[in-house]
Amino acid sequence: MRISGQITPDDLPRVCPLLSRQTNPQYGEDRTRVVEVGGVRFGDGRPVVIAGPCAVESHDQMLAVARAVERADGDMLRGGAYKPRTSPHDFQGMGMEGLCMLRIAHEQTGLPIVTEVMDTRLVEQVAEYADMLQIGSRNMQNYALLAEVGRAGKPVLLKRGMAASLCEWLGAAEYIAQQGNLNIVLCERGIKAFPAGEYARFVLDLNVIPAVQANTFLPVIVDPSHATGVASMVEPASRAALEFGSHGLMIEVADFLTGRPRCDADQSINGETLARIVKFAQSHHERLLVDQQAV
Amino acid sequence: MRISGQITPDDLPRVCPLLSRQTNPQYGEDRTRVVEVGGVRFGDGRPVVIAGPCAVESHDQMLAVARAVERADGDMLRGGAYKPRTSPHDFQGMGMEGLCMLRIAHEQTGLPIVTEVMDTRLVEQVAEYADMLQIGSRNMQNYALLAEVGRAGKPVLLKRGMAASLCEWLGAAEYIAQQGNLNIVLCERGIKAFPAGEYARFVLDLNVIPAVQANTFLPVIVDPSHATGVASMVEPASRAALEFGSHGLMIEVADFLTGRPRCDADQSINGETLARIVKFAQSHHERLLVDQQAV
Amino acid sequence: MRISGQITPDDLPRVCPLLSRQTNPQYGEDRTRVVEVGGVRFGDGRPVVIAGPCAVESHDQMLAVARAVERADGDMLRGGAYKPRTSPHDFQGMGMEGLCMLRIAHEQTGLPIVTEVMDTRLVEQVAEYADMLQIGSRNMQNYALLAEVGRAGKPVLLKRGMAASLCEWLGAAEYIAQQGNLNIVLCERGIKAFPAGEYARFVLDLNVIPAVQANTFLPVIVDPSHATGVASMVEPASRAALEFGSHGLMIEVADFLTGRPRCDADQSINGETLARIVKFAQSHHERLLVDQQAV
Amino acid sequence: MRISGQITPDDLPRVCPLLSRQTNPQYGEDRTRVVEVGGVRFGDGRPVVIAGPCAVESHDQMLAVARAVERADGDMLRGGAYKPRTSPHDFQGMGMEGLCMLRIAHEQTGLPIVTEVMDTRLVEQVAEYADMLQIGSRNMQNYALLAEVGRAGKPVLLKRGMAASLCEWLGAAEYIAQQGNLNIVLCERGIKAFPAGEYARFVLDLNVIPAVQANTFLPVIVDPSHATGVASMVEPASRAALEFGSHGLMIEVADFLTGRPRCDADQSINGETLARIVKFAQSHHERLLVDQQAV
Repeated sequence: MRISGQITPDDLPRVCPLLSRQTNPQYGEDRTRVVEVGGVRFGDGRPVVIAGPCAVESHDQMLAVARAVERADGDMLRGGAYKPRTSPHDFQGMGMEGLCMLRIAHEQTGLPIVTEVMDTRLVEQVAEYADMLQIGSRNMQNYALLAEVGRAGKPVLLKRGMAASLCEWLGAAEYIAQQGNLNIVLCERGIKAFPAGEYARFVLDLNVIPAVQANTFLPVIVDPSHATGVASMVEPASRAALEFGSHGLMIEVADFLTGRPRCDADQSINGETLARIVKFAQSHHERLLVDQQAV
Repeated sequence: MRISGQITPDDLPRVCPLLSRQTNPQYGEDRTRVVEVGGVRFGDGRPVVIAGPCAVESHDQMLAVARAVERADGDMLRGGAYKPRTSPHDFQGMGMEGLCMLRIAHEQTGLPIVTEVMDTRLVEQVAEYADMLQIGSRNMQNYALLAEVGRAGKPVLLKRGMAASLCEWLGAAEYIAQQGNLNIVLCERGIKAFPAGEYARFVLDLNVIPAVQANTFLPVIVDPSHATGVASMVEPASRAALEFGSHGLMIEVADFLTGRPRCDADQSINGETLARIVKFAQSHHERLLVDQQAV
Repeated sequence: MRISGQITPDDLPRVCPLLSRQTNPQYGEDRTRVVEVGGVRFGDGRPVVIAGPCAVESHDQMLAVARAVERADGDMLRGGAYKPRTSPHDFQGMGMEGLCMLRIAHEQTGLPIVTEVMDTRLVEQVAEYADMLQIGSRNMQNYALLAEVGRAGKPVLLKRGMAASLCEWLGAAEYIAQQGNLNIVLCERGIKAFPAGEYARFVLDLNVIPAVQANTFLPVIVDPSHATGVASMVEPASRAALEFGSHGLMIEVADFLTGRPRCDADQSINGETLARIVKFAQSHHERLLVDQQAV
Repeated sequence: MRISGQITPDDLPRVCPLLSRQTNPQYGEDRTRVVEVGGVRFGDGRPVVIAGPCAVESHDQMLAVARAVERADGDMLRGGAYKPRTSPHDFQGMGMEGLCMLRIAHEQTGLPIVTEVMDTRLVEQVAEYADMLQIGSRNMQNYALLAEVGRAGKPVLLKRGMAASLCEWLGAAEYIAQQGNLNIVLCERGIKAFPAGEYARFVLDLNVIPAVQANTFLPVIVDPSHATGVASMVEPASRAALEFGSHGLMIEVADFLTGRPRCDADQSINGETLARIVKFAQSHHERLLVDQQAV
């Protein structure tokens, strides 16, 4: 019995020739292409920590969280202005107003901004306000959006789909690359599998990190917030991701003083926990440098 | 440990009040809303069989397959003009030209057309040529597209995402309904799970059919071609789907005389097999009528 | 990156040479080896329906259900005397006393008995009372038990593990066959995957039925009760399984007059529903015979 | 629609009252019960590293690997004398002779031994040679074996089944505890999910580590060898597991000088890599101590 539609990692040189390590020998066996976003460098040794609220909710909330990220020595700010929600009756994000709040937070902290775009017709608008465009898990195979974002001339954060194989993920990245934009950072965020929902929101799949690195030269980071869905797991998951070779983290942080977040409250950590994670990321990097000099 | 983002069927009245059976008592416990497409009626007792090629490839191929569907007594024609492919370097469909070929096939056979649209900016164009707009699995949570398709005034075929829960699927349908369009037909097409790829492309999940029917009044059909990925499984899967209560089928058919299909060749059946499936669908319906009269 | 432990259907001639269709050409492309249990023949055209309570609970309950199975024209009786339960503090079955009750039910109805054995040291005892020994899902890879059961000289019903691949399942059957016992019937009973628990207990995987038949000559049946976990789904799942080529069914039936069952109450059907399923199985078989004569 | 057989972590006090943290308040919110095996202490702060070959193959191989584990400063020796294999025609382990080789390796190195037992009738024999009895994934729900091992008076290593939920795993441990044996160490070893086989053997599920610790007082370790199936992933997976709170590791090590292992060759690391992992485990523990003093 022959089965339609089978793609394996052996097919990657054909599926994504622009991004496959095998078809781009200039990157050798383990060199990563550095992606720069407003001075922040993904894949250049030191892990990058992106942090911020699930959704932008108000000027006060956004600035409070941005200050917390700044104090924690985070590298970039995240925050959703356009929110993909399971129900159309749930809070959909503040849209244009949210983008504006993100930009003001950037002005006050200097931290570059990444935010999700979900509509081809809004790519240009979002690109004016954001330093990096995020493609969310639900849109990982929205090929029209991938191409449009590829043309926008901004670095792209491409989250893995909830059930995307490695090949489907890298194939999606190739749609961006095909538009001449190789400034792509991949982001693992947990997958759907039988235990998802029993004790965590998704199953954090760290095995995919070295598999990504073996098959492409793009940097890859981890979102421990969605991958666990449990605030108390975010710090250990962050450390684990870095030890597994992740080039960075994207974390949901809340300022619980300005109110309980309107989405993902149970997976949001506070600024102090973030500070410990950032400190770990830095010391982890220093340990690696020391180890390398020892060799 | 509390987990973010948990939604269960108990939440459906809140997630999709326009579509939930519980919030729409006029449909009672088991009545289905009939969705009509060019004279074809989904959910009205007799199962609907949609058939056609994976992708439209040429006038000759499209007409040959359309004639085969007509001979087999199929109800509607399918065919992809815009094809979502894992790699951007694979055949992406014939686009506008493919739509035109579909329309001509309709003119010659009278069979209504369903075809996939993947880009919000092409919804209007596709809606001019198609009788029903298909949202593919990869775009099930492309909410901008769902809303745009909802506004287009054409019936919509919403395929289940490869890892979509029941709640995520009905939530996606609610985005269409929110635009005032309740002419939605759901389509199960196989899910990702551990055995997918070992002996079949996906895992056909028929349990979801009665679960859909218990929770919404929308009709639901099954795509046995993608759910199995194996041509010899399509006929038994079709019969099984109908016995499990599916309101219809969407099947990939090829005319192997005009050449091997450019995609999904191993899951495409020929016109004779299709004819047997249609005949089964009709006799299945008659049996049900006899059984009901006996009660 | 090379991965340890990969087995695919191409390896089956090596994994299970005693059972692989390819290494046993006497069975051709589609002939099934008939397994006989007390006059009941699995794989001989007419589907076999096994039915009975989840657990044997009392003489009254067992006889009431056995009579219902007899009235419904079922072929064999099931009933658990030794019950594998997630918690050791849950009801573990009546053991030896349950075996005795099963045997008495057999005496009164003439229906052959299948019951689960979980302990190598009890195989001989259970084999004295049962006509067919069942290996449950949890013990599918309990190789010591498989070998012991293989030596017991009774036909074996081997349920698929909750996450067993086709290859692991047939490899397990080979452990029985290696002891000289080819009287094995396989039983699909639902697998673990992301939606399990949302609207059904497991995911009924019917695609595996033709895959089993393509790779071995053993008969294969379906347990729609565990695969769905929902009483109202059992009848449609049964019909679907037969249409997909299953050689039979194993169904949990309760006699709700003698009390709510102590396990699996929500997936147990009554005798009337069972009678409709048996009637469908018979008419399904007659239809197939008519179709074959028409060819 | 009500579904049979649903168990959630809220049910754990009822499912496993002997092991649930909630029903054993003496362990508070985060204290672990220390399990001692020949002087090695699981759950007492310093992570425990178990290492050794997949299967015992010869005196020379076993001693060479044991010496490598000793040199690397590992804590315990593993090695399979009875091997559960998908096919009965594959190497099944050396049995009694293998146990003897393990014991001699213990005599020469002083390292305590853990080895798998698969047959209730061999528990006594294996317990004579081993310091700790391992229940493998395939036998996690072999309740007769769990009870027998519980009675043997030796500490038990209970691996998680390939598709076991948290509740099923802790329920299995309760079968051991019910015999009066609380010296149980749990071991996560990768689960079955859609990407298993694409780039790794299983999906390493680290989220389960804090979930175990929140729900029971038993120590829990990780097997990075089976969870990845790829030798080059074992070291990063080991570090990640420790950062996620694992109380130890169980790792497959080969001595490639004495020959390629007869099973799991592609996931076996050499002694040097093991030494780096052990060193990491020790420094990780020291860092934690320093951090705690800083608080």
